[in-house]
Parts: sequence; structure tokens; C-alpha cells
Amino acid sequence: MSSPESAFSSLFKEIDGLKEHFITRLSKAVSIPSVSSDLTLRPKVVEMAHFLKSELTALGAAVELRELGPQPDAPDTQLPPIVLARYGVDTSKRTILVYGHYDVQPALIEDGWATEPFELVQKDDKMYGRGSTDDKGPVMGWINSIEAHQKAGIEFPVNLIMCFEGMEEYGSEGLDDLIFAEKDKFFKDADAVCISDNYWLGTTKPVLTYGLRGCSYYSVTVEGPAADLHSGVFGGMVSEPMIDLVHILSGLVSPDGKILVPGLMDLVAPVTEEESKTYDTIEYEMNDLYAATGAKTNLHDDVKRTLMARWRYPTLSLHGVEGAFSAPGAKTVIPAKVTGKFSIRTVPDMQPHDVDELVFAHVNDLFTKLGSKNKMEIKLLHDGKWWLSSPSHWNFEAAKKATKTVWGVDPDLTREGGSIPVTLSFEQATGKNVLLLPVGRGDDGAHSINEKLDISNYIEGVKTLSAYLHYVAVEKME
Amino acid sequence: MSSPESAFSSLFKEIDGLKEHFITRLSKAVSIPSVSSDLTLRPKVVEMAHFLKSELTALGAAVELRELGPQPDAPDTQLPPIVLARYGVDTSKRTILVYGHYDVQPALIEDGWATEPFELVQKDDKMYGRGSTDDKGPVMGWINSIEAHQKAGIEFPVNLIMCFEGMEEYGSEGLDDLIFAEKDKFFKDADAVCISDNYWLGTTKPVLTYGLRGCSYYSVTVEGPAADLHSGVFGGMVSEPMIDLVHILSGLVSPDGKILVPGLMDLVAPVTEEESKTYDTIEYEMNDLYAATGAKTNLHDDVKRTLMARWRYPTLSLHGVEGAFSAPGAKTVIPAKVTGKFSIRTVPDMQPHDVDELVFAHVNDLFTKLGSKNKMEIKLLHDGKWWLSSPSHWNFEAAKKATKTVWGVDPDLTREGGSIPVTLSFEQATGKNVLLLPVGRGDDGAHSINEKLDISNYIEGVKTLSAYLHYVAVEKME
Repeated sequence: MSSPESAFSSLFKEIDGLKEHFITRLSKAVSIPSVSSDLTLRPKVVEMAHFLKSELTALGAAVELRELGPQPDAPDTQLPPIVLARYGVDTSKRTILVYGHYDVQPALIEDGWATEPFELVQKDDKMYGRGSTDDKGPVMGWINSIEAHQKAGIEFPVNLIMCFEGMEEYGSEGLDDLIFAEKDKFFKDADAVCISDNYWLGTTKPVLTYGLRGCSYYSVTVEGPAADLHSGVFGGMVSEPMIDLVHILSGLVSPDGKILVPGLMDLVAPVTEEESKTYDTIEYEMNDLYAATGAKTNLHDDVKRTLMARWRYPTLSLHGVEGAFSAPGAKTVIPAKVTGKFSIRTVPDMQPHDVDELVFAHVNDLFTKLGSKNKMEIKLLHDGKWWLSSPSHWNFEAAKKATKTVWGVDPDLTREGGSIPVTLSFEQATGKNVLLLPVGRGDDGAHSINEKLDISNYIEGVKTLSAYLHYVAVEKME
Repeated sequence: MSSPESAFSSLFKEIDGLKEHFITRLSKAVSIPSVSSDLTLRPKVVEMAHFLKSELTALGAAVELRELGPQPDAPDTQLPPIVLARYGVDTSKRTILVYGHYDVQPALIEDGWATEPFELVQKDDKMYGRGSTDDKGPVMGWINSIEAHQKAGIEFPVNLIMCFEGMEEYGSEGLDDLIFAEKDKFFKDADAVCISDNYWLGTTKPVLTYGLRGCSYYSVTVEGPAADLHSGVFGGMVSEPMIDLVHILSGLVSPDGKILVPGLMDLVAPVTEEESKTYDTIEYEMNDLYAATGAKTNLHDDVKRTLMARWRYPTLSLHGVEGAFSAPGAKTVIPAKVTGKFSIRTVPDMQPHDVDELVFAHVNDLFTKLGSKNKMEIKLLHDGKWWLSSPSHWNFEAAKKATKTVWGVDPDLTREGGSIPVTLSFEQATGKNVLLLPVGRGDDGAHSINEKLDISNYIEGVKTLSAYLHYVAVEKME
């Protein structure tokens, strides 16, 4: 096989020439409101799967729509299928497994969108629309790459295995089972995995992502009277569950972000000197945080400590209270049963089970000390483990070269504070390296109103994904 | 005028004879769903005013439906009228002002009612239906009393001024203005005031009520980022408003009910020995509390301390949080702006302004000590002062005699932990003594599903209200 670079000139020219065609493809995808959390739109999610099948089949890929059965929390409704596709069966080539999702978050123009959310609208070199960046843009990116190779008459450098799911925004129901069931079947040839479902850290510099935090989500319920009480009649006579609850919640974390669960920080891997250095060169400023949050309420004053707080230290967030008075106005109720929700973002080397044990012990201890006659229950609602890859793996080296080729800069190596559970599932099931290669920018507003994808990120993204496939095809294994 | 007792034999016989007729009157009233908080039912509230007018006019009372103009929070809708009625203009008689309300709380059978809420259903000597006890039963009581006197051929002992409002369950909009505007006009002849809009403490012993707690309701808002944030991405980077808030809320009150606002308890009038004794004979058991709340989560182990906590000590209740995640499930949000709601039930001699000052200073102090970069605002949402009357006033003496006559026992003298703001308004506007003379029992379930009024309470209630008017007509002023 010739050097990767020999193909780029004509390939990139082809991609530039197909720009309007690629935008039209994304427009078609965005116009299908494939909102997985809205059962009334389930036919649209299924329609989106068929759209992908049709596009991929037209390009010569072998496509299967894998049915997953009924949705556990809505047994009368079938889960949308997972699109399993394969392009190329050349045993002399490497096989790359890519993942994306074709479902989207809900969106209503009444939420404050400036344009119709399910219509791709171009303005100032940006394309606005639900799913433009999360994750229809990147999914189209892989399809566009296949088409550009064909039209430019350039041999596709790898066998591509594609796994596109339709329930990512609603818990990825059924995905894990499929991944583990297919690890020695449909996914067995995979030499490496690439997922494009996250974002640059900022708005100007491309990144590759090698780590994610885990998340352990808890509920703590305090229950007293059999029903809500009138605070005039019963205030002062009975223990109030809400009072107990705020005392427990305030014993979990201090206003400066310090986690108050004894022993929890002992589970955190120490920062090595080498690791510490990697934070020194990341392109990020405190102003990026201020711009993203619209406030100067930073807990730390320098960039390095701020990024470490996001990526490699655990944090405890209080999300809210279920069962108390939560509407506007002034209601004089003593809520009978209240449930506080909090979660801990976990990092290496915290084992979820150890975290649970410490949290349960601490909450029980806090409640015992209150001396309340109410009942308390602490529960784990769900957990997902952190993920940490090696950014010097040949899979990452290929992506670094691709980024440098297309964008002219070395990508920053980043981690994310949030979770993408499928990352860990693919790593564990296939035993192969997983790379997160984002297409969009940090200000794309995934999950928000006015979600967008810059046209340059979309088109250069197709080039980056394509270049990555050329480099990963020949990258020397270490 | 002859002695009150001379009239009772034939009057009470007449009332017993009219039992079915009186129940039919209450049935008609309950069948009109005069829900004041539901704008779609506003015509029914107005219909209920006309029903009262028609009943009273038929008995010879002079009735005016006083219009109050548009509803402030729904300017396209007119407030229901206040029914102002007068029965008797004999200057040789005392004039008694009575108050009640003809609107009701919302009720839907889907809420869990065993019977249609707007149909009066008899079962086991009880009458179930929305408004049966709160407050249509007592309002019908006054009308029944007039009719019974007429049919028994007994002279009505007083001039009766009636004020029945239709917005009690939605903030008594417009009532205070009317009371103060009419204090030297429609209400100027009043020698004493009687309100029947509360309940016995328990289920077996009648009570008279001479005190109410006030209520100062506050909101404390903590605001940080411009919009809700993802806890994965921003957890650890920014101050979380919800964390600040639970630290403030837990600094207001301890789990054993102790108010932590410095200086607040110094505003409370000390308990005199004489007052302390009045608690020793009240018919109340800890089991009454357990039955009412469905739990043994009492803060105090003895009846006396429990009743004092309800009636004559301040309490601080936490009602809930607005702006945080309050639905079922697990959402990983950092709420941008959260508002805690709490209220203090106030007692003599706490002045609302002093309470505000102490609360504001304490909350500001708590927030300052957090060292947070978020913004905090503490606000008073509304307040109402406590009310304390003298239970040895001749107005109360008349009610004691009436109760003894009808029920054969001396009533317990009680206070209430909640507020009935109109009580204080009438006292301040007229300068006359106000008596709370309840008809229903402590387990009637006002505001709850399956609201009821015992038939015996309704019929003996008509006798009690009537006997009260006879005694108050001749009771010696001190």
C-alpha cells in the first residue's frame, strides 16, 4: 500500500467538492426527529435507522438492522434497531470499528430555539439543528468518507465495521448486551475502535480524548409521616424529613467542593510528575470557563487546577430533591417523604463498589448522628466506571497524524469530566484500544437549544476521519 | 328578653325536626363545585354566592353581593362577590358579626376520593363531600339557625351581620380591603365577632379557639452559572448553588426542631405559670398525634410540650427547593439557580419586622461564611401576624355556656398552630373581640380527600351556634 499522504491531495479535493452534497445528507438526517426519549416519535427513530441503511447500502456496505426487542420501561414499544454495517472484507487490511448514535435529544422551538430545531439552517458558516453535532454530523462523517473515496477512485484503506445505535440519549438500552454478545462475532475482526461523540475542549484547537470520569449516582430518602402535613398544624410536633435531608446533604460536600465522605480521596491515584506536566500545555483559559458558564464562579483560580478538577479528581454534585415543594409560590407544607439526589464523578483508581461502601457508611453515620425518628434509606441508582486509555497507543498516534495533516496543529490530549459508557464497554468487550476523536467544538451546545456544527468542522472532520483511517491502516503496532 | 334557656327546648326540637331539610340544604351547597383556585370553575363560585343570596333572602335577610373587581393574577376574570347580609335591625339587640367562606379546595375523584367529591354522601352518620366541613357546613349552620327560629316562632336574639367570602382558599383576595373599608359602615354595629372555620382538636370534645400562630414565609435564592450545567463537564470547576443552599438551610434549624436564628427565641413571650396550667387539662393524647400523622416521629414525648410546640412556640419548617431537579429518576444536572422555601410560625410577642431582621442577618451571615462566589438573595414572600384573644371575654363566656348546654361538657380552650388571617383583620378593623367557634372535628379532613362532617356535629352545631347567639345577646360585659 502506498503512503497515506499520497492519497490526501485528491481525496481532500473530492471532499471539498462534495461539500454541498454532504450538507444535504446531514440536512436529511436532521429533518428526521429521531428523539429516543419520546415514545410518540419512535417511528421517526426507526425511520432514521432505515435512512442510514439506505445510504450505506447504496455505497456498497453490508447492513443489518438488529432488533433489540421491547423497551423495558415501555414494554408495548419496540426498541429502535442498532445499525450494524460492514464496508470491506479484505483480510489484508486492518479492521476499524466505529461507533455513533442516530437518536437525538428532545427539541421544541418553544424551548428558545432561534430556528426550527429539526431543520438544518445555515448561518455564519454554522449549521443549526438538533443532532447536527450530537451525533448525526459525525455519523454522516463516516458515510461521507466512504463516498469520497469511491468518487475520488481511492481505495478505502481499512475494513470498516460500523455500530450506530438509536437509544444513546435514553440510556443505551440493549447496547451493552449486543456488544458483549457480538464481541467474537460481528466485532471480532476489530483491530481498534474509534468513537466520535464528544467535542473539542475549546473552539479553536482539535483534541483527542483518552479519559473519562465514571459516575456513581445515589438517592437518599428520608420518610416520616404517612402523608404531607400542614406546617401550621404540625410544625414543631414532628421531625421533618426535609430538615433531616438538608443536614445529610450538607454533610456530603462543602461549598468549596471538598468531598466530606471519609476515605474517598484515598481511593484516588496520585498525580505523577509526568501526568502533571501534560496539563501545562493544554489550550484552555479561565475565560473559556467564564464564557461556558456565563459566570465567574470558579472554584479554582488557575487553569491547571481547574482542568484537573474536571478530569482527574472526583467531584460530588447535588442535583435536587424529589418529593418536596418545588413549584413557584409559597406552600406551607411539611413534605412527608423527600429524596435527595447526588452523584460522585469517579476517577482512577476508584472502584465503584468501594465508593458505595464509603458513601453508604458516611450517610448512615450522618443520619444516626441526627437522632431522628424518621426513616432513612440510601440507594445507588446507577454507576458507570471511569475510563483511561493510553494516548501513546498506535490508534492515537494515527489520529494525531490525521489531525496534524488536516488542521496543521498537534491535537491537545484531553480527558472528559463526563461519561460515555459505551467507551468502556467496547474496550472491555473487544480488548482493543478505544480512541475518542471528536468532530465538533466545545461550544456546539449538544443537549442545549441552538445546537450547531460549524461547516468547517463538518467538512474538515470528514477529512480528519478519512486521514485517520489511512494512518491507522499502516501505523506501526508497538 | 327572657332567659336564653327558655327558648332552647322548642328551638332544639325544631332543629332536630329540620334535620333532613338542613342536610338537603348542605347537599345543594356541596353540589356546586365552587373551587376558587380553578378559573374554569369561577362561574360555579359565583353560582354559590347566588345560592346563598337566595337562601338568605327567602328568610328575610337583606343581602348584597359585593363585587371586588378583577382578580390581580388573572385580570380577565372577576373575583367572586362577597356576600354581605344582615338579619335584624333592632337597636335594642346586640349585633353579632359572623364570617364564613363559600369557596372550597379543589377535589377530583382521581385524587383518591371514595365517593364523588361534589355530591354529599351519607355513610355511618357522616356526610362526605368537598366543603362539607370547610366551610359550607358552618355557613349553612347560621342560615339553618335563622330558619329554625322562624319555624319555632322564637324571636331571633341578636341582629346578625354575615360576611361570606368566595376566595378564602385562594388568598382571600380583596377581603381585607373590604373589611377595613366597611368597618364604620356595614360592620359598624358589630358588638362581637364569631368565626366558624376551624375544628375541634380531637374527635370527641368541643373546643373554643383563642389563639393562632402567625407565619412569615421566606425564600432564599442562590444563583451561579447563567444556565444549568452538566455535572460531568463542570462538576469540580464551579461553585454549585445547590451545595450553598443546603448549607444555608441546614443552618436554620436542627433536626430536633431547634431554630438556629440567633435572638429569635428572645422575642417569644415567656410562659406564665397560669398559662402553663391551661395545658394540663386539654383532652389530647400522643396517640392522637400518631393517628393524625400516621407515624411516631414526635419531637416531644409528652402532651403538654407537644401542644405548646404547636400553639405557643415558633417553629421553622423547610418546604422545598425550586429550580433543582425534582422529578423521579437520575439527572446529572448542576442547577444554575435554586430557591429554598422556609417559613417561621410566629407567636406572641414576635413582631414580623423583628423576625425578618433576625432571619435576614442570619442568612446573610451563613452565606458570607460559605465564602462562595455565587449570588444569594433572601426575601420575605408573605407574612401574617399571630392572634391571641382573651378566652375570658364575654363573647367566649357565651360560647362556653352554649357548648355546655348542647354538648354537656365545658369546651377545651385551644389555640391553633396555623393562621386564619381574617381573624386578626376583623379584630383590628372592628376593635371587637373575635371568637373562633368550630363546628367540625379534628379528623374531618379539610383540604384532604374524603372530607366529611359528622351529622351530629352539623345538627348539634346548629344548636350550638343558636345557643351562642342567645347567650351572647344577654352576656354581661366585663
